[in-house]
Amino acid sequence: MATISDAAQQTAIDMANARAATSIDHAQTRDFLHSAQGEWLKRQNIVRTLESDPIFDKTHREFMTRTDRYERALSMTNRIYELQEIHRWTNEETSLAIASLDEALPIALHNIAFQPVFFSQGSPSLIANYGPLIATRGILGCYLQTELGHGTSVSQLETTATFIPETQEFEINSPTLTSSKWWIGALGKTSTHGVVQAKLILPGGKDILENHKVLPGIIIGDIGPKALAGYSPTDNGFARFDHIRIPKENMLSKFAQVTDDGKYVQPPHAKLSYGGMLYIRANMVTGAGWLMAKAATVSLRYATVRRQGERGPDGLEKQTITYPSVYIRLLPILSHAYVFIQLGRTLLKSFDMMSKRLASGDTSLLAEMHATTSGLKVMVSTLGVHDLEVARRSMGGHGYSAFAGLGRLYADYLPSVTYEGDNFVLDQQVVRAALKSYKALFSLSPTPSASSLSPSSNYLRLLLPPSQPPQVTDSAWHDPAFAITLLEWRAAILVREHARTFADPDASVNQRVAKAVTEAFIAVQVGEIMKNLTLPAPTGDVVRSLYTLYLLTVVEGGLVDLLSFGLLRPGTNDNNNNNTHSGSSDPGRALRLHINRLCQELLPNAIGLSDAFGFTDWELDSALGVFDGKVYEALWARAQLEPLNQTEVTSAYEESIRPMLLRGQRQVAQARSKLGSKL
Amino acid sequence: MATISDAAQQTAIDMANARAATSIDHAQTRDFLHSAQGEWLKRQNIVRTLESDPIFDKTHREFMTRTDRYERALSMTNRIYELQEIHRWTNEETSLAIASLDEALPIALHNIAFQPVFFSQGSPSLIANYGPLIATRGILGCYLQTELGHGTSVSQLETTATFIPETQEFEINSPTLTSSKWWIGALGKTSTHGVVQAKLILPGGKDILENHKVLPGIIIGDIGPKALAGYSPTDNGFARFDHIRIPKENMLSKFAQVTDDGKYVQPPHAKLSYGGMLYIRANMVTGAGWLMAKAATVSLRYATVRRQGERGPDGLEKQTITYPSVYIRLLPILSHAYVFIQLGRTLLKSFDMMSKRLASGDTSLLAEMHATTSGLKVMVSTLGVHDLEVARRSMGGHGYSAFAGLGRLYADYLPSVTYEGDNFVLDQQVVRAALKSYKALFSLSPTPSASSLSPSSNYLRLLLPPSQPPQVTDSAWHDPAFAITLLEWRAAILVREHARTFADPDASVNQRVAKAVTEAFIAVQVGEIMKNLTLPAPTGDVVRSLYTLYLLTVVEGGLVDLLSFGLLRPGTNDNNNNNTHSGSSDPGRALRLHINRLCQELLPNAIGLSDAFGFTDWELDSALGVFDGKVYEALWARAQLEPLNQTEVTSAYEESIRPMLLRGQRQVAQARSKLGSKL
Repeated sequence: MATISDAAQQTAIDMANARAATSIDHAQTRDFLHSAQGEWLKRQNIVRTLESDPIFDKTHREFMTRTDRYERALSMTNRIYELQEIHRWTNEETSLAIASLDEALPIALHNIAFQPVFFSQGSPSLIANYGPLIATRGILGCYLQTELGHGTSVSQLETTATFIPETQEFEINSPTLTSSKWWIGALGKTSTHGVVQAKLILPGGKDILENHKVLPGIIIGDIGPKALAGYSPTDNGFARFDHIRIPKENMLSKFAQVTDDGKYVQPPHAKLSYGGMLYIRANMVTGAGWLMAKAATVSLRYATVRRQGERGPDGLEKQTITYPSVYIRLLPILSHAYVFIQLGRTLLKSFDMMSKRLASGDTSLLAEMHATTSGLKVMVSTLGVHDLEVARRSMGGHGYSAFAGLGRLYADYLPSVTYEGDNFVLDQQVVRAALKSYKALFSLSPTPSASSLSPSSNYLRLLLPPSQPPQVTDSAWHDPAFAITLLEWRAAILVREHARTFADPDASVNQRVAKAVTEAFIAVQVGEIMKNLTLPAPTGDVVRSLYTLYLLTVVEGGLVDLLSFGLLRPGTNDNNNNNTHSGSSDPGRALRLHINRLCQELLPNAIGLSDAFGFTDWELDSALGVFDGKVYEALWARAQLEPLNQTEVTSAYEESIRPMLLRGQRQVAQARSKLGSKL
Repeated sequence: MATISDAAQQTAIDMANARAATSIDHAQTRDFLHSAQGEWLKRQNIVRTLESDPIFDKTHREFMTRTDRYERALSMTNRIYELQEIHRWTNEETSLAIASLDEALPIALHNIAFQPVFFSQGSPSLIANYGPLIATRGILGCYLQTELGHGTSVSQLETTATFIPETQEFEINSPTLTSSKWWIGALGKTSTHGVVQAKLILPGGKDILENHKVLPGIIIGDIGPKALAGYSPTDNGFARFDHIRIPKENMLSKFAQVTDDGKYVQPPHAKLSYGGMLYIRANMVTGAGWLMAKAATVSLRYATVRRQGERGPDGLEKQTITYPSVYIRLLPILSHAYVFIQLGRTLLKSFDMMSKRLASGDTSLLAEMHATTSGLKVMVSTLGVHDLEVARRSMGGHGYSAFAGLGRLYADYLPSVTYEGDNFVLDQQVVRAALKSYKALFSLSPTPSASSLSPSSNYLRLLLPPSQPPQVTDSAWHDPAFAITLLEWRAAILVREHARTFADPDASVNQRVAKAVTEAFIAVQVGEIMKNLTLPAPTGDVVRSLYTLYLLTVVEGGLVDLLSFGLLRPGTNDNNNNNTHSGSSDPGRALRLHINRLCQELLPNAIGLSDAFGFTDWELDSALGVFDGKVYEALWARAQLEPLNQTEVTSAYEESIRPMLLRGQRQVAQARSKLGSKL
């Protein structure tokens, strides 16, 4: 292996060596991740178009104010739709273009909240009037639900919509400060229209004003910057309404309706309007997968070229990826990306099937989709935020530079743990669904049967006789199917335990049960993905090992539960060292050693497995994740652009630094002259 | 309890009610936290001075660019020292003033890195020449250690200092890109001088230039923005030296020296220069404690006035603090603050004792202080970052507003997990010290004796015969001493296990062992704090309960270890429900129920315990943590200042939004006219 003494040059060599050591087939893995070669080519094509266009340049992004970022976002959005016209992109391709931007564009709220709600809940005549303009963004919308004093719980909203039969109008009003609509994406400055959730009924629409000014009687503004400078380009806004009249026909009345004489007409099914929310949650799984992919790519690349600490056999400091405390943090992130990218694909297929049934009034798949997406939303958002930070932290000091690129992704992704249903609230819904299935199962006594169980509660079959928990031997960890069964057992026993102690719960039980249930569900799905894996050897074997790593690390994370219920038991623990688990009484030891061995097997393919995501340097926008490995040149080049460096002497010098220096120098001179006069 | 219907008004009532429900004595608790009434009054006085001075106004901070933040920081720094002169503050009072600013000032690097290193390692003549100017900030310094390609491991540095006997000079040189000094706080734009760590020897000092320009042959600049917009006001900088000559007498030569003919003179003890690093780490414990205190204050206040979800007996939505999933997250943070504020005080006393000994060449306390501060640095930084985010997340959607205030603290504190020794590297040092003590203990066979154990390794006494692990009964959790012993057992067994399996480690063993060792050490210290607690009832009892909560939640976090080594064992687990642990086979259940009961006992005093930290609204700078509880008014008022709101129509409208709208409208018109011509 060639090495040279200049550390900066060595990085490129290390990266090339890592690529050369890869045994998997790059194209096969890439097409597997993108579902097919055609999809990959489509994506590559779009990214090439964007990265060659100066509008999408990222060179100065880290130095911009929030107002700059907002204006740039709008300019990029306008350009995207210009490009759509020029290149005749389909809507799907345009979505792909927006998704590849790593930028929280206000238009996202039009596309994923306003437009779907309008089309799924608007009456045919309203859709005929406004639909085409909405679809072409001839008007721009937002979705006004959350209020300053109230979360997304619709029943608690204070904004009122009062029907006025005389004029066939609704009057929208904000009676209190806390009824102000708040956090509404794209409301602050961008939107021309909005769907307003209000008490009593669901009306829609403010009129187009040619000059983009706010209608009289409405106060609208931006709610201010977000934590960690996240979501800068989005104008999350507030709105207050002072008795604003809206024509009755603007109500979104496909399901719930109001008659001309003011009578309320119930929707045929209370949950018909849930589709939009489930769609957003289902999409979050795929989104999280690709975000984890970025975290893995950047951190694995940096750990491959960063050398630090002990010297290895080549006389150089060791690559940080060779340290167990580094690879044990990064390879699981890689496995998460592979899991959630595939799982997201499965989930969107299930969602499409449910939507088709829903459109014909069939709500039979809704409860299952709701339970599944609630748990998955909690899991991917919690894990995604965690992984981004674990990856950033693995990069040591340089990881804290904005140029490392992961901090920005973290800041933008962070609200995912509280939006679209706070994770701690959604946990309760997962637990409620699990308890319902448990009770339904055992209400069938004396002969409960597993046939009634849905896929998301199928693990409960294990509680039926004559099933017995498996015996754990140290060699069992070689078999991924065993890990899956163990995770199902954990979920089943935790749900049973919670049902039995329901009257006297501890304070975190919902979190533990929901996690166990969701992890069991995902584990079974991963088992399916592994079963259906058609990648030829050696690529298939490596990818299978990566999925096994996922399963085993989840088992390790669940050890408290497994040990608490005796699914795993410690060996003897005495000074004679008569132990049972790989030379130790610790039943977790064999598992951890197996995880370590899997990691060591996977290491030579870490760069190959992350290259297969196919990110370009423009997409990653990370000085530490550059494809060629030249991280120090990249950091140096980007630092030179810092605005503070554009003048040699800071303007703070005359203003503050010089007065401070002079004060100190005067004090010293005074002290010395006092001393002199004393002598 | 009085309630009214306006949710915004209700917040003030809720806060007043919570204060009225407090049973602890406010002044007693406050003085306990500040160590004495006099200390509190001193601090209050300083804060009042600062918050009434417009220089320290925070109203527009969230809207500022990094350059603005930097210039403001310097202006604040200059004002602080002006105030020191005016009010004749002691240096300690001035430090207190800086610490109360919640602003990463560049001067911190002069005060905690440059100045201590200079005074502890400079020769008497160098100190005579420069000491007074440094002490009065007549020159401003930085400490140049880390390089672009190398962390803080001094042995790997590339910068060279070559002694030139002919001229009695050192020549400082940066031979490669990666030898560039990087991340150096206050180097970018602020400092006039610096201490340079270089290969071979340790020289110091660039000359004062009246115009603040950089000396010829040196390239200096700012390294650019940090992740999450953290540390904005500090000009972390880079420097490259092109054969720069420095007079020999500028070398920091108190310990290591170079003779006039170029011979190296060893320092009397290799680690005499460690003092500065240990001082910074010891200070981090106190700093973390007060940061956790801010996180607890803001989040507990918001959870007290925020109402959401189910309606309670008063007909209003419940206060979020009443939800178990909220208080189980927040009360432990409160307990961490109480632990680390007190522990930091103890530690600084030990540090002072060690420093005095060190000054006279006695290094006997150094190893112990090193082991202790390494573990504590890892613990407080990991936990501090975690607590800030847990608190922020508990506030739901509004927690993501910059005005919530915790995001800014998080961004600034985040680098603490990688600076001053990366936490994963320090873990190894903790483990190494523990193994050394273990081996020393058992090398004394056949009669090993606990008498040789230092305080930080005293838990190893448990491994000596005839000691046997305690039996855990459900009632044992009432006794904090039991929790402490259990945590010591856990540490002892993990160290023994690691020593036995040293040749075949798993990948995360250092993290687990270091955590167990440090938590045992802290637990013993908490036991001491509780023993010495002189607060009268009822305050003393409440504070004691808070410390017990700390201990029990640490035990809960260590359950995997306790279960893996049989210190806790599951009961029988069968369908007949013949269980042993509070009606369950889960040995963690009794512990979790006890934690839950402790939380419920503590809840009425949550606001009182956090009020006792004594933060003013100016110090917290959080719309959600305002003292009077009026969070919605505060959010509303701050949003009005957002720059985007200063114009009704955004400049993005003409530029981008209008073209986009017109394109969509044109497309619809074209489609309709096509359709019309077809009809």
